[in-house]
Amino acid sequence: MPHLDFEPGLPGIRGPMAFSPETARPLNDLVNVVLRTNATHPDSTLSGGERELIGTYVSARNDCFFCQTIHGAVASHQLGDTDWSLVQSVKEDYTRANISAKLKALLTIAGSVQQGGKQVTAEQIADARSEGATDRDIHDTVLIAAAFCMFNRYVDGLNTWAPNNPALYRYRAQKVAEYGYTSDDHYMPPA
Amino acid sequence: MPHLDFEPGLPGIRGPMAFSPETARPLNDLVNVVLRTNATHPDSTLSGGERELIGTYVSARNDCFFCQTIHGAVASHQLGDTDWSLVQSVKEDYTRANISAKLKALLTIAGSVQQGGKQVTAEQIADARSEGATDRDIHDTVLIAAAFCMFNRYVDGLNTWAPNNPALYRYRAQKVAEYGYTSDDHYMPPA
Repeated sequence: MPHLDFEPGLPGIRGPMAFSPETARPLNDLVNVVLRTNATHPDSTLSGGERELIGTYVSARNDCFFCQTIHGAVASHQLGDTDWSLVQSVKEDYTRANISAKLKALLTIAGSVQQGGKQVTAEQIADARSEGATDRDIHDTVLIAAAFCMFNRYVDGLNTWAPNNPALYRYRAQKVAEYGYTSDDHYMPPA
Repeated sequence: MPHLDFEPGLPGIRGPMAFSPETARPLNDLVNVVLRTNATHPDSTLSGGERELIGTYVSARNDCFFCQTIHGAVASHQLGDTDWSLVQSVKEDYTRANISAKLKALLTIAGSVQQGGKQVTAEQIADARSEGATDRDIHDTVLIAAAFCMFNRYVDGLNTWAPNNPALYRYRAQKVAEYGYTSDDHYMPPA
């Protein structure tokens, strides 16, 4: 049961976002920029799907069911991973997943950020650069990983409810791809 | 030395914020709402200074020098703690600090969030309520603690530079109180 009296039936972060639209707005703005708009930044080589994969990986390490499932579904949608096997392989052992060496190096940085900012080493940064990551990619990876350390704590710190049915996450993933992150009602199938 | 080539002389988060104004905007919007605007929310009993104290405490637990120093300075400015002794006592042992029982209960929740969202217990929530915390206070405490887990990782994950001179933080604290959080040039004394 959620720690606060959220509107019933709203999954994960949507409960606190409906409770507090004042803070939902900048939170949605942040993910829309760092997961979506920055994917088209001239200095970026990271696609939207790869950014979602970084967020999914950090959420899995933080054991946040809602965040890893919805962002995993969005990543799969954007990367053409219809059976979710690529996302699953990244969560299990990204070093053996079918992703670029550059993305593996960035996931290593993201894993350090998840443990704590001081865990990121100059060697990890140099490795990412040698695989083709730009300064923008490194910046965005650190910020994405840090932001999911916030979102995961917001979602689980308030003990929010999350549905189990994968179809709901697939539905929402399509809507996110279409409309971006908002706190309105595009996220769940019509009753 | 910072991991990326930030503009020299910009302290802490200002380096990455100048590098990436696209993401600086929602990050500043978030702290302005949760640390400042929400302090005047009709359901809130937490002052701006108390909110800054929560952020300072979490930043200290995450060992982020820049964040704990600047937000400690802002908290002290807002709480009339001219010699910073109150902030220091909260960082050392908040259970013995000269703050309300309600704020102590909320700092316990913030400390759990810092460790991980699932560490927050129903008992901690009930304790905070019994000391007079509203649902809005509990929501904002969880979000502030979660947000500082992001900011601390953003600042330290990029190995940003921070000045040691307390006078610089005192100066900036006055400007934050006056103008709010922005990424413009109010933060450092004129050369």
